[in-house]
Amino acid sequence: MDSAVQSLTNSGDVLFLMLGAVMVFAMHAGFAFLEVGTVRKKNQTNALVKILTDWSVSTVVYFLVGYPIAYGVHFFMSAEGLIGANQGYELVRFFFLLCFAACIPAIISGGIAERTRFWPQVLAGAIFAGLTYPFFESLIWGQNSSALQDWFANTLGAPFHDFAGSVVVHSMGGWLALPAVILLGPRMGRWVRGKSHAIPISNIPFLALGSWILAVGWFGFNVMSAQNLNGISGLVAANSLLAMVGGVIFAVVATKCDPGFAHNGALAGLIAICAGSDLVHPFAAFLIGGLGALIFVYGFQWEQEILKIDDVLGVWPLHGIIGTWGGISAGIFGYAELGGLGGVSFMAQLAGSLFAIIYALITGFIVYSVIVKVFGFRLGDDEEFRGSDLAIHKIGSYPEDSVS
Amino acid sequence: MDSAVQSLTNSGDVLFLMLGAVMVFAMHAGFAFLEVGTVRKKNQTNALVKILTDWSVSTVVYFLVGYPIAYGVHFFMSAEGLIGANQGYELVRFFFLLCFAACIPAIISGGIAERTRFWPQVLAGAIFAGLTYPFFESLIWGQNSSALQDWFANTLGAPFHDFAGSVVVHSMGGWLALPAVILLGPRMGRWVRGKSHAIPISNIPFLALGSWILAVGWFGFNVMSAQNLNGISGLVAANSLLAMVGGVIFAVVATKCDPGFAHNGALAGLIAICAGSDLVHPFAAFLIGGLGALIFVYGFQWEQEILKIDDVLGVWPLHGIIGTWGGISAGIFGYAELGGLGGVSFMAQLAGSLFAIIYALITGFIVYSVIVKVFGFRLGDDEEFRGSDLAIHKIGSYPEDSVS
Amino acid sequence: MDSAVQSLTNSGDVLFLMLGAVMVFAMHAGFAFLEVGTVRKKNQTNALVKILTDWSVSTVVYFLVGYPIAYGVHFFMSAEGLIGANQGYELVRFFFLLCFAACIPAIISGGIAERTRFWPQVLAGAIFAGLTYPFFESLIWGQNSSALQDWFANTLGAPFHDFAGSVVVHSMGGWLALPAVILLGPRMGRWVRGKSHAIPISNIPFLALGSWILAVGWFGFNVMSAQNLNGISGLVAANSLLAMVGGVIFAVVATKCDPGFAHNGALAGLIAICAGSDLVHPFAAFLIGGLGALIFVYGFQWEQEILKIDDVLGVWPLHGIIGTWGGISAGIFGYAELGGLGGVSFMAQLAGSLFAIIYALITGFIVYSVIVKVFGFRLGDDEEFRGSDLAIHKIGSYPEDSVS
Repeated sequence: MDSAVQSLTNSGDVLFLMLGAVMVFAMHAGFAFLEVGTVRKKNQTNALVKILTDWSVSTVVYFLVGYPIAYGVHFFMSAEGLIGANQGYELVRFFFLLCFAACIPAIISGGIAERTRFWPQVLAGAIFAGLTYPFFESLIWGQNSSALQDWFANTLGAPFHDFAGSVVVHSMGGWLALPAVILLGPRMGRWVRGKSHAIPISNIPFLALGSWILAVGWFGFNVMSAQNLNGISGLVAANSLLAMVGGVIFAVVATKCDPGFAHNGALAGLIAICAGSDLVHPFAAFLIGGLGALIFVYGFQWEQEILKIDDVLGVWPLHGIIGTWGGISAGIFGYAELGGLGGVSFMAQLAGSLFAIIYALITGFIVYSVIVKVFGFRLGDDEEFRGSDLAIHKIGSYPEDSVS
Repeated sequence: MDSAVQSLTNSGDVLFLMLGAVMVFAMHAGFAFLEVGTVRKKNQTNALVKILTDWSVSTVVYFLVGYPIAYGVHFFMSAEGLIGANQGYELVRFFFLLCFAACIPAIISGGIAERTRFWPQVLAGAIFAGLTYPFFESLIWGQNSSALQDWFANTLGAPFHDFAGSVVVHSMGGWLALPAVILLGPRMGRWVRGKSHAIPISNIPFLALGSWILAVGWFGFNVMSAQNLNGISGLVAANSLLAMVGGVIFAVVATKCDPGFAHNGALAGLIAICAGSDLVHPFAAFLIGGLGALIFVYGFQWEQEILKIDDVLGVWPLHGIIGTWGGISAGIFGYAELGGLGGVSFMAQLAGSLFAIIYALITGFIVYSVIVKVFGFRLGDDEEFRGSDLAIHKIGSYPEDSVS
Repeated sequence: MDSAVQSLTNSGDVLFLMLGAVMVFAMHAGFAFLEVGTVRKKNQTNALVKILTDWSVSTVVYFLVGYPIAYGVHFFMSAEGLIGANQGYELVRFFFLLCFAACIPAIISGGIAERTRFWPQVLAGAIFAGLTYPFFESLIWGQNSSALQDWFANTLGAPFHDFAGSVVVHSMGGWLALPAVILLGPRMGRWVRGKSHAIPISNIPFLALGSWILAVGWFGFNVMSAQNLNGISGLVAANSLLAMVGGVIFAVVATKCDPGFAHNGALAGLIAICAGSDLVHPFAAFLIGGLGALIFVYGFQWEQEILKIDDVLGVWPLHGIIGTWGGISAGIFGYAELGGLGGVSFMAQLAGSLFAIIYALITGFIVYSVIVKVFGFRLGDDEEFRGSDLAIHKIGSYPEDSVS
């Protein structure tokens, strides 16, 4: 390859991954507005500051320790060394993968909304983004993956396949949220004498805005998971699209046009397709996404009304259970017999997906139990009643309205 | 060309069109918020769910039948076949062109807002996006274009030129909306005993947000219409920009700073320039966009106050008449004598633009007449009075406010 | 280089800069919503129309005279000439750099909000974007840069380095705002008999939305400042990221989680890093951004409570002082001894940064003094009391609410 082509290839890779990183960075605004629209007005500001702070702290810890743990590469060298021979490609790869790591606290945030102390939840997010998530990442995608993946390949027929993180990112985030939500307990007034009182959401346009931002950015999440320009595949884009619309259509039909489920249905489809987006057929993607949406619709109601878990945005069924479904479904529809590209093993997908659940539940219970004990995790009753905006941030979301 | 260059060229094309697709996909959030801001609060949720559902259904029908009708290419093959030799380029081309097809129901949605039944309008959108629009597309851009375009070239001096769809997309959508709006009739209270009662819009920030999202995404709509990276032209970007600011400036001056017209003026300019954005001079683009905005300002008032047509967002003048103007103006300012690149014919542009009007009016009247007869198209009076949010979606846009 | 590689390189450059331009264009929506969220509801519409009109007028004047002044290239030629041999690269370069020029009125807008006449402020913005900014730009980046930069290099050891415009854009805008705000005077009721009455902001979600849009687009602002694809550097992206999160973290800690400072802290970090984003180490970027945020937190309070300057969004400390800090800090952390790439001079950075302040203050005082004298700059008392929405635009931001 001559040097002009080499240079163009390398520049193209840096651009490709930088665009992906920016798109996934933008998704964090989507997480913020999805939560703003879903919580009560007295907790909207808190949602915004929480997501932004979690993002920022995640950046620092993932830069310092997380990325080194996951990939064995650190940044303790001069700027010249960082640019290296490839125009700083490693730095944009860090940026892109940080955007994934920072999804962990952003996902959890929606479950623990409206009643959580600020810094303890930041601390938990930092531990996940800086330590426990990167270690898991290292086993599936990173420096320790050959050990585990070889075992999967030899024992179960194929490595565990998770192209864009249904399991590594979403299921990890969703299953980490479960112990957090349980240890925290429900919001005041959610159940009164055992009777369920649904707490109304505040703002459907903001919820929808959040969902739209997430859906748009998701094409960076999935397509740019190839991590280099020549690895781009139109199939990933088409599958993401078909899974998303499958999620919307199934959710709209199942709930008779409920706006919250419609917009979360798009996300359900996108979460479900991450793992297999590079190898299933678009028809399968549609079904994977559609079934993902049904998991959310019925899973959320089951979680709320039967299990009585007050997971405000339903992040456990949404990211956790659907993420698991994404990992497993890649092991079904990935087979060439079902129109996929093959090279996957159902048992490996099942095992990998279950492993993530166990890892998340154990690390989550440990981290949150310690935080509950050492720092306290929940706002005082009067703080919760006034709302976390006034209690933590000393200002409401619409200050002019409060004054006049 | 050696294989590294070939690979880079192909990857570049997939990336180019994928980015374009994502930008135009994002525009659908813009359609949603433009409508949310313009309708009354009791119909905001409906606007959001309608746009999302129309998008999703359009995706399915365009994937299954629309794209095959337009381009003679189908996707009934294995994932391996879909990726083919060019990294799934055809799939991202489908995605990009779907985003155009899905504009048809998104445009109509704004005209029929606040009083329409949900599923009948979804059905109409599906018929347009899946059948009638793709057939028209096939005649201008697609598999049947040689027949029509050769006739244009031989008889009228040049093929009909519509680079990015002023006519194929916008005029088609806007002129389809006209029969829909007429058959539907005005909203309750819009005219009382012949007297006009303007219905106030709800939320200018949301309207402006929608306009901004549309304007940003429009650069994907126009620039990526080249459909391959080596076809990119800075002229398209500059013309889109100049037409947009022409639209804003003319609208702001003509209406003495009206916010609705200012933000729709940007869209007016962008709609007008699509057709000729690859061949007119930026000065001409400014004028094309500016005159487009005047068409909207005066056309909207004429439509409302003289014709007494209750087209809520003014989509017939905005997309329909301005789209037609875009097609014709490319046949004026495209001439080399007026600074353009030449190769166009005024008569061909006029004929093609009029053909689209006739095609849209006929297909629109047929589809909507059948829907009115068979399913009913309009909400009951009490449903309309309560608002389509409560009537259709069983929830308002700000549930917390309704409770407290 | 063979022709296929040449073609791909050129197309890649056009795409690269077009994407950058679109991202920075989107930032103007961010400016708009940052202002919408910060001003009172009676001035939200005005913020939106102002930003959009300023953008549009800036486009026209920068196209006609600004870009020619800055770079000695004009567009008075046929469309064919504009496309030239490089697919219209010059036009997208214009588009990209226009987005920078148009930041000048967008920055000032936030300082003079809630009490300014419409067209006089448009006129001032046009003079800056069309004349005074491009001339300064020509000295640092453009056709006259060799004169000044050679002097810097010979006298002070290195040229003045401002990679992405901490000084050229942000400090210029912020220091131009200072005379505007002073000549305008404070809003009614801001100080009553010398006593400070903070005026509450209206809408934190909109403020946060604006900040998010700005932060996302900023990666185009900084990364695409390389202006060609092969110049891309992952270091620029990483430094922008680290400076932004430094800004957030310092602001959140210093203000105990204040939402306005948290979201403006992200911007503070990004403003500070523009100048040196291509040459400092990410650790330094974190510190540069963090100190930028402290400058804003304490600078804003000092400006408001000690200097008693009613700069509504705090654009003088935010863009002005932090922009200056960005220029100077590149001359500290850019040294190889501090992990940077070297090739900078502290004295050149200091001199260049001070030169921008002087240039801005002089041109700003002249332009605004003339405008105050000739046209009048401030709304009448009754207009200000009713709000600029009703006074200028004859409509409020939420018309439906005003009616019912």
